[in-house]
Amino acid sequence: MHPRTGLPVVGMVGAGQLARMTHQAAIALGQSLRLLAAHPDDGAALVASDVLIGDHTDLAALRKLAAGSEVVTFDHEHVPPEHLRALVADGVTVYPGPDALIHAQDKQVMRSRLAELGAPIPRWAPVTSVADVERFGFPAVLKAARGGYDGRGVWMIDSADQVQELLNAGTPLIVEERVPLVRELAAVVARSPFGQVAAWPVVETVQRDGINVEVVAPAPGLSEDLAIEAQELAIRLAAELGVVGVLAVELFETASGIVVNELAMRPHNSAHWTIEGSRTSQFEQHLRAVLDYPLGATGLTAPYVVMANLLGGDVTPPRPGEYPKGGHDKPPAQMTLDERIHHMMAAEPGVKVHLYGKELRPGRKVGHVTALGDDLDEVRRRARRAVHWLREGEDS
Amino acid sequence: MHPRTGLPVVGMVGAGQLARMTHQAAIALGQSLRLLAAHPDDGAALVASDVLIGDHTDLAALRKLAAGSEVVTFDHEHVPPEHLRALVADGVTVYPGPDALIHAQDKQVMRSRLAELGAPIPRWAPVTSVADVERFGFPAVLKAARGGYDGRGVWMIDSADQVQELLNAGTPLIVEERVPLVRELAAVVARSPFGQVAAWPVVETVQRDGINVEVVAPAPGLSEDLAIEAQELAIRLAAELGVVGVLAVELFETASGIVVNELAMRPHNSAHWTIEGSRTSQFEQHLRAVLDYPLGATGLTAPYVVMANLLGGDVTPPRPGEYPKGGHDKPPAQMTLDERIHHMMAAEPGVKVHLYGKELRPGRKVGHVTALGDDLDEVRRRARRAVHWLREGEDS
Repeated sequence: MHPRTGLPVVGMVGAGQLARMTHQAAIALGQSLRLLAAHPDDGAALVASDVLIGDHTDLAALRKLAAGSEVVTFDHEHVPPEHLRALVADGVTVYPGPDALIHAQDKQVMRSRLAELGAPIPRWAPVTSVADVERFGFPAVLKAARGGYDGRGVWMIDSADQVQELLNAGTPLIVEERVPLVRELAAVVARSPFGQVAAWPVVETVQRDGINVEVVAPAPGLSEDLAIEAQELAIRLAAELGVVGVLAVELFETASGIVVNELAMRPHNSAHWTIEGSRTSQFEQHLRAVLDYPLGATGLTAPYVVMANLLGGDVTPPRPGEYPKGGHDKPPAQMTLDERIHHMMAAEPGVKVHLYGKELRPGRKVGHVTALGDDLDEVRRRARRAVHWLREGEDS
Repeated sequence: MHPRTGLPVVGMVGAGQLARMTHQAAIALGQSLRLLAAHPDDGAALVASDVLIGDHTDLAALRKLAAGSEVVTFDHEHVPPEHLRALVADGVTVYPGPDALIHAQDKQVMRSRLAELGAPIPRWAPVTSVADVERFGFPAVLKAARGGYDGRGVWMIDSADQVQELLNAGTPLIVEERVPLVRELAAVVARSPFGQVAAWPVVETVQRDGINVEVVAPAPGLSEDLAIEAQELAIRLAAELGVVGVLAVELFETASGIVVNELAMRPHNSAHWTIEGSRTSQFEQHLRAVLDYPLGATGLTAPYVVMANLLGGDVTPPRPGEYPKGGHDKPPAQMTLDERIHHMMAAEPGVKVHLYGKELRPGRKVGHVTALGDDLDEVRRRARRAVHWLREGEDS
């Protein structure tokens, strides 16, 4: 219990942007997130009051976080399962619990379990030799069973030659068929220990180089049957796996239906749009779930919502004779983030920005923007224009 | 500049709920509010990382806040004007500046200036003797020129006898006619140093014992002419007084039009509804203004928005034989805030709650709720029901 407010304290392992945005939601609930941060300048550590510095692989640090918390939850999936079991053995409430979270930590465990449950998944197999992949056939996708994210730990394989190198690295691997996908979708739900589940509309997620760059809610043109199937699947998986908190089910839409790509058990990039686009954001919902509060309404606040990720470092150097353009007299590459924010806000006064307090390294997610409205093309254009100003320092 | 993000730092004097909610908005902008808090357990100090403990009447403490900030702004109006002038003389950017803020600090200065500007105000006069009030006539309203808020520093006067006592206390006083009001309204705007002004729709504010208990946006049944007049008045005052940041113009609606009651130059209770109810919240807008960013869109996100304040301590003791009621088996008076939140969220999953991290003292504003929708009666009912659960521990 917080000594001041008498409310339960939520401890979160990790202090990146997910923790940062969860902290914003916690404040409204009368809370203040207790964080285990790897570094004092992690995005969430910059803005919260109760921050422990320590590593998520250090059981002593995890115990210190737990000591001041009624419930421990996560900004990422990288805590070793044996540490989570040790916390549970200590009597700590861990949500999602280790037996659920393992399905977001280990792709082999996840695939096996989803197969058991009859969930639609790609053809797959564990890999311990080159022959396992050869037997499976090409083209194929090799995935590190553990530790991958944002396209890392995923390799497109066309021949046996490439497999041995990955095996030599010692990473546990699985192989999957390359799914002939129409597009990617995500079905995001939240589940409380009481068993209540709430689902947001199914969204389309657009990737570039394995990194999510845009999310459109609801997924344009998705048939109602398929939308319901995806939501029901996510709800069923949340219950069967015993998830508490947000569960994001990343899906491939194919000509013949949907298949599950990945699971995440925490607030997820595919639902950042919910901050402005839904009556209850995924960050508030995750907190409500892990606190076993009743879940919030998940209706949309506008017919269309588009979230665009801001990736750092994509600065185009200025070309001679090209400036001033768009009313500013500074070459884009010399424009500070603060100046870019000025331009973005002037250009798109209705677009909301979320910056994560990170350095602008190439390819790194350093923020996102959200646009809402009645006309999808217009909403998408506004989101892209805002992110273009921030990323490139010029109008799109 | 923040050493990590390269963005300007906003310092805020005071760490109550306004600072707490401004901090939430700051996080989205990549910022983290730098606070001067009276106590370490002030609402905003509980949730922010960069907190100085010190008194707003201590110039040294104000200078310490300013030293790490690109701009200094306020959670309240109680900083002595001479200290603000000293900061400005130091070269500190103070928004709103002392020459603007004085109109929210000193009702005599405010009334004089508004009279000069031809703004609609009640008949009024400065008071230095009982005779000043007698000359003015009864019934009358006596107000402390400085330091009043939430109904404090305002006295309803029917006879000369009551005046001398107030004069003896040494408080500078003004007298005003008791305006025959139909209802109270508020016109809230924000202005940037660049001179851009953005207005939210005019709202109705409902008071009880001088404390705001409910705000309805937009003000129901307000004629378009009067709404535009109120907005134009607020915009003109923001410009004439040189306000930077949010300006709340509290208005009386009378049978013959509107008159200005009070001014506030900071985020204001009459615009808490903007967090969910407007594309840009007053907290984000205040930050955009003091940072001289372009202002955000102020459109509504639903046809009607109702905010209800949660006042602490209004616990009705249980009556025998009355419980269980509404599905719970605990007498309301014994129900913790955490348990009340459970019931409130179960009853009203679409209502948003904001708790300020305060102890539940009688009459104290400890939080608020916001409901949105198409039907005003229904929206108002939902907001009241949610606040009733939190306040009384039972269904309404």
